Amino acid sequence: MKFVTFVRDDAVHTGALLTGALAPEGDLILDFDDGGSGLPVAAGPLDWADTGAEPFHAAARLVAELDAERVGTLADQGAVVPAVEVELLAPIPRPGKVICIGLNYRDHAEESGLDVPEWPLVFSKFSSCVVGPGVPVVLPPGDDEIDYEAELGVVIGREATHVSQERAMEHVLGYCNVNDVSARGFQFKDGQWQRGKSCDTFCPAGPFIATRDEIGDPHALRISFRMNGETLQDSSTDQLIFNVPQLIAHLSSFVTLEPGDLISTGTPPGVGFARKPPVYLRSGDRMEVEVEGLGVLANPVA
Amino acid sequence: MKFVTFVRDDAVHTGALLTGALAPEGDLILDFDDGGSGLPVAAGPLDWADTGAEPFHAAARLVAELDAERVGTLADQGAVVPAVEVELLAPIPRPGKVICIGLNYRDHAEESGLDVPEWPLVFSKFSSCVVGPGVPVVLPPGDDEIDYEAELGVVIGREATHVSQERAMEHVLGYCNVNDVSARGFQFKDGQWQRGKSCDTFCPAGPFIATRDEIGDPHALRISFRMNGETLQDSSTDQLIFNVPQLIAHLSSFVTLEPGDLISTGTPPGVGFARKPPVYLRSGDRMEVEVEGLGVLANPVA
Repeated sequence: MKFVTFVRDDAVHTGALLTGALAPEGDLILDFDDGGSGLPVAAGPLDWADTGAEPFHAAARLVAELDAERVGTLADQGAVVPAVEVELLAPIPRPGKVICIGLNYRDHAEESGLDVPEWPLVFSKFSSCVVGPGVPVVLPPGDDEIDYEAELGVVIGREATHVSQERAMEHVLGYCNVNDVSARGFQFKDGQWQRGKSCDTFCPAGPFIATRDEIGDPHALRISFRMNGETLQDSSTDQLIFNVPQLIAHLSSFVTLEPGDLISTGTPPGVGFARKPPVYLRSGDRMEVEVEGLGVLANPVA
Repeated sequence: MKFVTFVRDDAVHTGALLTGALAPEGDLILDFDDGGSGLPVAAGPLDWADTGAEPFHAAARLVAELDAERVGTLADQGAVVPAVEVELLAPIPRPGKVICIGLNYRDHAEESGLDVPEWPLVFSKFSSCVVGPGVPVVLPPGDDEIDYEAELGVVIGREATHVSQERAMEHVLGYCNVNDVSARGFQFKDGQWQRGKSCDTFCPAGPFIATRDEIGDPHALRISFRMNGETLQDSSTDQLIFNVPQLIAHLSSFVTLEPGDLISTGTPPGVGFARKPPVYLRSGDRMEVEVEGLGVLANPVA
């Protein structure tokens, strides 16, 4: 299932993105919060993200059983809407935590001139900087070295504390694209990365969360970043130094992971500050993050 | 007014702590979410923290007009309860952001062997590590150098983006004690401080928020930390390098501050790792943070 959060009639709704055979004339959204009888009900994105709660399972069952006829019926009931007619938000608009991992691709550590870490390097972005697809990233005053980072985002679906690597994947709801936008001036001048990583709008995420069953192995996904159509990052998640179970085991050893928490797993080589000459965001640029199976996360630069 | 959040009859309520002449036989809590007619209504702690919203002003007016007779009437209506009969939570149990400032007392920067920063050094704690008074701080596995830090917490009451120092105080709801518990092993091994600062239970806060009008000048408050009754930190907020307006102006220059956000403004000298010999938390220790006018924040070590 592909979870989406979107604005319809001025209210925030959650639903499933329907593509391909279920939506032959263009992507559709099944709106869990509106219309058709028999739809599951939840209190918002965080409830949908909780794989330990009934709304998630009801939604998954419903989507698994869909066929074109049922989609048609639900459309007649007003519960299905063309994707182009709504505004997608970040799939979890306000995660409890945005946990980031630094230097988690060997080549990126090398291009950054930093040692490859012996354990996962944890930093964070404030949740208030999460924005959805299409939302302009705003260049902050005081730093003109603003950079992009394509990342695989892991969304937590079940509370995790002190979990083993072997059990870690049971706590994953699914995956989404993340752009770990970074103000390099702030980041390196402060030493602590919080300011450089947490400016307003610095965490585009989406357009959807593909649930774990849709993706299979998260460590074999092509990951790329394009600026104005030019590919600047192109790698695979098979290059991750610490894989998803290792990250979850490490993180949950000191902090409780909760449904909706977002883990951004690090970026491959090709970021702007390490290029010669450096490439920084300029107003009017168009950024695209694409991790295989997770759609395209496109954001302009304001 | 002294805002509190507490558990009564298994539900989270918000209210005002009544002390002194209004509660001569022991502290009382006026429960905004229960009983007596004429009480303001809000949807929870974040609504109460929003000084731009009516619930805050209604509550402030009500408390300002209280006298012993009205307190008695409200008690008869079930809207007043002895403080000892409820469990206080952190006044904002789950802030949107916990923003911390490093090395913001000159002497503490010196004892840490680090340069005095030229601008505020920003780092953060995950909101999920906030706990209330009395909640045991849990020592995490893998690091036996766990330290305390008494801090003045500033709670945001009105959204702030790009505010000047001159207007900054208008965005402050009030103040509370914070204990910025820190795993020094994690903190210094990682280089980035997130893990060492964000272990579960590492952000005791409370027992109440004293609103801005109660405190007056936040830069003339005695601040102290006691371990098992022995004073280990004893300074004044007049030693802050960057004061509250300067911090709010700096932070709001890159991130939107929202009602309920907690800014922990840094710690004075006397922390454990800088003592000779070092003092680290041990199971059974009892910690107390006391900033003048903000009560005592006491937490045992588990």
